[in-house]
Amino acid sequence: MAGNSFGNLFKITTWGESHGKALGVVIDGCPAGLELTEADIQPYLDRRKPGTSAVTTQRKEDDLVEILSGTFEGKTTGTPILLMVRNTTQRSGDYGNLAHTYRPGHADFTYDAKYGLRDYRGGGRSSGRETVSRVAAGAVACKILSRLGVQAQAYTRSIGPITIDYDRFSQETIRTTPTAMPDPRANDEACAYLQEARAAGDSVGGSMECVVTGLPAGIGDPIFEKLDANLARAVMSIGAVKAVEIGDGTSSALRKGSENNDSFRIKDGRVVKSTNHAGGILGGISDGSPLFVRAYVKPTPSIFLPQQTVNQSGQEVELQIKGRHDPIIVPRAVVVLESMVALTVLDAMMQNMSAKMDSLIDFYGQ
Amino acid sequence: MAGNSFGNLFKITTWGESHGKALGVVIDGCPAGLELTEADIQPYLDRRKPGTSAVTTQRKEDDLVEILSGTFEGKTTGTPILLMVRNTTQRSGDYGNLAHTYRPGHADFTYDAKYGLRDYRGGGRSSGRETVSRVAAGAVACKILSRLGVQAQAYTRSIGPITIDYDRFSQETIRTTPTAMPDPRANDEACAYLQEARAAGDSVGGSMECVVTGLPAGIGDPIFEKLDANLARAVMSIGAVKAVEIGDGTSSALRKGSENNDSFRIKDGRVVKSTNHAGGILGGISDGSPLFVRAYVKPTPSIFLPQQTVNQSGQEVELQIKGRHDPIIVPRAVVVLESMVALTVLDAMMQNMSAKMDSLIDFYGQ
Amino acid sequence: MAGNSFGNLFKITTWGESHGKALGVVIDGCPAGLELTEADIQPYLDRRKPGTSAVTTQRKEDDLVEILSGTFEGKTTGTPILLMVRNTTQRSGDYGNLAHTYRPGHADFTYDAKYGLRDYRGGGRSSGRETVSRVAAGAVACKILSRLGVQAQAYTRSIGPITIDYDRFSQETIRTTPTAMPDPRANDEACAYLQEARAAGDSVGGSMECVVTGLPAGIGDPIFEKLDANLARAVMSIGAVKAVEIGDGTSSALRKGSENNDSFRIKDGRVVKSTNHAGGILGGISDGSPLFVRAYVKPTPSIFLPQQTVNQSGQEVELQIKGRHDPIIVPRAVVVLESMVALTVLDAMMQNMSAKMDSLIDFYGQ
Amino acid sequence: MAGNSFGNLFKITTWGESHGKALGVVIDGCPAGLELTEADIQPYLDRRKPGTSAVTTQRKEDDLVEILSGTFEGKTTGTPILLMVRNTTQRSGDYGNLAHTYRPGHADFTYDAKYGLRDYRGGGRSSGRETVSRVAAGAVACKILSRLGVQAQAYTRSIGPITIDYDRFSQETIRTTPTAMPDPRANDEACAYLQEARAAGDSVGGSMECVVTGLPAGIGDPIFEKLDANLARAVMSIGAVKAVEIGDGTSSALRKGSENNDSFRIKDGRVVKSTNHAGGILGGISDGSPLFVRAYVKPTPSIFLPQQTVNQSGQEVELQIKGRHDPIIVPRAVVVLESMVALTVLDAMMQNMSAKMDSLIDFYGQ
Repeated sequence: MAGNSFGNLFKITTWGESHGKALGVVIDGCPAGLELTEADIQPYLDRRKPGTSAVTTQRKEDDLVEILSGTFEGKTTGTPILLMVRNTTQRSGDYGNLAHTYRPGHADFTYDAKYGLRDYRGGGRSSGRETVSRVAAGAVACKILSRLGVQAQAYTRSIGPITIDYDRFSQETIRTTPTAMPDPRANDEACAYLQEARAAGDSVGGSMECVVTGLPAGIGDPIFEKLDANLARAVMSIGAVKAVEIGDGTSSALRKGSENNDSFRIKDGRVVKSTNHAGGILGGISDGSPLFVRAYVKPTPSIFLPQQTVNQSGQEVELQIKGRHDPIIVPRAVVVLESMVALTVLDAMMQNMSAKMDSLIDFYGQ
Repeated sequence: MAGNSFGNLFKITTWGESHGKALGVVIDGCPAGLELTEADIQPYLDRRKPGTSAVTTQRKEDDLVEILSGTFEGKTTGTPILLMVRNTTQRSGDYGNLAHTYRPGHADFTYDAKYGLRDYRGGGRSSGRETVSRVAAGAVACKILSRLGVQAQAYTRSIGPITIDYDRFSQETIRTTPTAMPDPRANDEACAYLQEARAAGDSVGGSMECVVTGLPAGIGDPIFEKLDANLARAVMSIGAVKAVEIGDGTSSALRKGSENNDSFRIKDGRVVKSTNHAGGILGGISDGSPLFVRAYVKPTPSIFLPQQTVNQSGQEVELQIKGRHDPIIVPRAVVVLESMVALTVLDAMMQNMSAKMDSLIDFYGQ
Repeated sequence: MAGNSFGNLFKITTWGESHGKALGVVIDGCPAGLELTEADIQPYLDRRKPGTSAVTTQRKEDDLVEILSGTFEGKTTGTPILLMVRNTTQRSGDYGNLAHTYRPGHADFTYDAKYGLRDYRGGGRSSGRETVSRVAAGAVACKILSRLGVQAQAYTRSIGPITIDYDRFSQETIRTTPTAMPDPRANDEACAYLQEARAAGDSVGGSMECVVTGLPAGIGDPIFEKLDANLARAVMSIGAVKAVEIGDGTSSALRKGSENNDSFRIKDGRVVKSTNHAGGILGGISDGSPLFVRAYVKPTPSIFLPQQTVNQSGQEVELQIKGRHDPIIVPRAVVVLESMVALTVLDAMMQNMSAKMDSLIDFYGQ
Repeated sequence: MAGNSFGNLFKITTWGESHGKALGVVIDGCPAGLELTEADIQPYLDRRKPGTSAVTTQRKEDDLVEILSGTFEGKTTGTPILLMVRNTTQRSGDYGNLAHTYRPGHADFTYDAKYGLRDYRGGGRSSGRETVSRVAAGAVACKILSRLGVQAQAYTRSIGPITIDYDRFSQETIRTTPTAMPDPRANDEACAYLQEARAAGDSVGGSMECVVTGLPAGIGDPIFEKLDANLARAVMSIGAVKAVEIGDGTSSALRKGSENNDSFRIKDGRVVKSTNHAGGILGGISDGSPLFVRAYVKPTPSIFLPQQTVNQSGQEVELQIKGRHDPIIVPRAVVVLESMVALTVLDAMMQNMSAKMDSLIDFYGQ
């Protein structure tokens, strides 16, 4: 089944495996006339790169993006943009011993169940490396959004039990600390917590959040293409995400209506809300407040403790994973969340242009 | 934008407003040869009907479904099935005073922002009545799934602070108690809690859960059409849902990898898991364990307490909602959750049939 | 498979069988704010109605359209529009003798091959009555197009060997003559020709043409969604169409490049073409000249002469069709062609709105 | 707008420009377990390569395909297959003088109208080189089809006035003669005709045909996804195609029903037809006879005679095209036709697998 595309008018199709020759994405439907070079995209890929700190794997991944089509003299032409990242440093030998054993928490068994075979090198298509393609496309979406006054910003919200304190929110630390937490103190605590887990051969879970500002009211759709529904799909499609919240999310279920409803007010002649429990979306359509999307991520399934599992021959075996693995997924996934949210929002904005007869008539000048 | 379709091979398109002439759905792609009459669908619609108890609205909604196309001599023909429910008892006069005021927590403002006008009678397309169409289609999906050995079962998991105790799980009470809770004691407590909220003119939130059993391993897709991603979209597309969890959901984010990984075992010659934190899905593909999907629902936004809001003319006004409204959405939404999950799973199963060359070769008999 | 939808942003989904309870269409993605009542649609349905003349069947089909959703106070709301036509005068008894015999030139055999069963009453879903839904939706598309300055006009081009003479082109006769030919003399000759065929128990083929004027340059897409490609699909999807031409069509294949290229000129400050062999489309995108689309239609397969065929039991039998059937399909299909062309063009115009960054920036006002 | 994908379950997305770094295609939905290497694809690309004969351009295009993802140990894995062909020999200097002038019969003007800018080097995305991607994907589709007993075979049917004589049909000559005509005598005449046109600085049109054998009855769909409708779109999406016929095509419009209907017979216990005017499709669904699809192609628009045209500044100018251009498009387009037909048929076969309840029940083993 053809499940590697995302979006309708701004549509991406990703391809590539962890240990194949390359990974990449076709962006189809990018408006013409956007200034775009590799330099717009590379910083996003660098944000998902493993570092040398305690909290990310120490593999070297030099993910250099190349634009192979869709631009001319530094501008997009409206034709498909092919972005490619070569796999240069993957050594297949690292993973060979996992060829016939199903790692707990991984997709090895389910791929075999679906396809009858799988590329076992580094997880193949199920590897986190697949997100390289999403982030490359997300960088283009973010650039377009910024031209429309819309900004998406994601960060780590919690690592294990350590959650950021919004009173200490510091924008700068998101891109400078190893945890991508916007709270320096939480970052320090989380680093210590991660060191401990890594030393024990274990891994930890966490959560991340994306805020979208500048989005006008009226974007989205009422039923199956609700903006929140499409965000939920976008975010849940990121590997290891197990829960998605919009606005106050699960907390809303514990409230009374009188506590949860956001009152409307008039401010500077515009309709605004006094609170934003809804997270910027009502009835599937943006309400002009910031969007809040939250994702909960399971611990890295690759741990260094011995695990019970089975192999392809149907035997129960003990598994001992080796190699280098992040003890937590979240910090490197933050830019993936940002990308998926940006792709979703941009597509909704493009689709929204024909929502009213007046818009068509204005556009076609009658 | 055309956002009223759901599914790829088993595709539904819904239509209709709260106070229009009728609501309904086209089911496109239903396999031929399924025995189907209105009697297969009506019980599902009856489950979302308001009752006379304290926890649901006392409006009378006789939602009688009619099959207008797609069957012949009691069997589906493979052509589109049109299911229609007439709106017989809606009185427009009930809602007229809300024509120009934006109700907090509702989609009135966002519809106006998107479309420039809206059908204000009973919320129009944003009304909970829209789910009549989903449930009618879901009934057909459930019937097909049951022929394939797959069952979807949803129930209320919590109402305000009252959560079911899985040790008291009682299948029978789901369809007999007003709360749709599978725990008689929790049902009693919840009823009391709801009475209290209703007396105060307020409403409450809650959560619901759907379990899918009998689903073979290998269903779903690795990237954007992950089974969990599509479930998240399906569930978040239900009005008032603010969070979606798969398996242990948000709890996973607090765990260590060693606690969260599900070990594989061999049982009766098949690969099984010792635990099911993952909720039956690994890497976007079913693993043969039961699926667990959870939805968190905000309190009914229509409350009887006075609220601050604005009107279409940009004036701040106080709003006093009248009429009849459920003090909680969850019990009637349980069958909607079940329907959306069934639609998602069936479509994935149909798309899965061409995943392997061997399947094609078997099918076309070479 | 779900094949009953057409279009992307302006998407229709049709349903209904010849002898079912009703036929209809959901229009999803119709812009809000269009004034729309049944009176806008009925005239289009009346154009495909059988008359009492020699060239159309004498069955009575009172196809009264009903709008069941998607409008409010006479305007579209942006939500799905359900259009329904009840089947009131179909008598199943007319067709019962064809239940188990495969009519030559019809889809009886292929439906059985695909689905394993079929609704044999009047051809079921394969009946020409299915086009009721297309025409109802086409009427809405035409109304929107006319607001944008675009007109689609179809007519009969030939009946058997009799072809219209463009020097005698008379717009008025298209809707007043039984053949829908824009040439009164050709109409007369064709009527005589049809009388003769009918008397012999036979049927005849013909061709029809649609011209679209007022379409700006720049509509369409370069590769698989070429405007001509989508028109070809749209037109070939009309039952009995066996060939589609754009512009000079098959004639182009006999020309030299020097004869076939259309020179560009400047007229009133705009780029125009000296000739229009291309039929208004270059590289899949409209060039500002009128579109010319032509369809060739096979003779009505239901003839009154005895025919050799087989039945469901695998026996060779002689078939004698009874009842009332048009001796030619074209005159009633003209409005279907017009509808399919209008639907295609409108969808392309809506999708075109996000082709340029400048358009997005203008729209979102940054 | 996102128009570079084709297919639903077997979906391709193409990218690349004539003078960009590379062209290619993502194949999404290819079943797992197909043996596939570059050697399966290269022969198809070689068939569209220009030769050194009089009838094709003398540019050197070494189109070497590279598989960058989606296979493992020589087999497809079910994940997206990226096929890439580097542009190695394009010299931008050849085309620089056309940067600001609209070539008659080309898409220069319409691209500017749609996008506001264009890659003028060699026609950019509108170049015939774009078909490299289609052919690479078509090769994979053909390999799968052959495993299912289905063969697609295309050839040149006419060049200018010279049409093949089916009595002299010679399969072998299709791939050995420069015209791809299956009739040696017609080939010789066509070569002489082309020499003459080339000497005059002119170009000629022609037609081509594709026959599909081995396709079982029951493939396709009744309404908008009719097999013939999708074939029409597929074929008309090939640049320069101006007409598409199924079966007897335009000729059917001149016939009586008694002449055009194909009688059914029983042969070896199977339902067959005595004739095949319908071209293997009835009601949008295959009938078990060979498919016949015909495409009419305009003359190469690049001719060496002086032409009247305009430039981007709105001035009328005389244009003199230089460089190397095929005097006819057809011979190199034959393999493109074959590819597009194969892609269409394979996708229909995959979608057909869930048409019946019995198929689902068999597949899922209940």
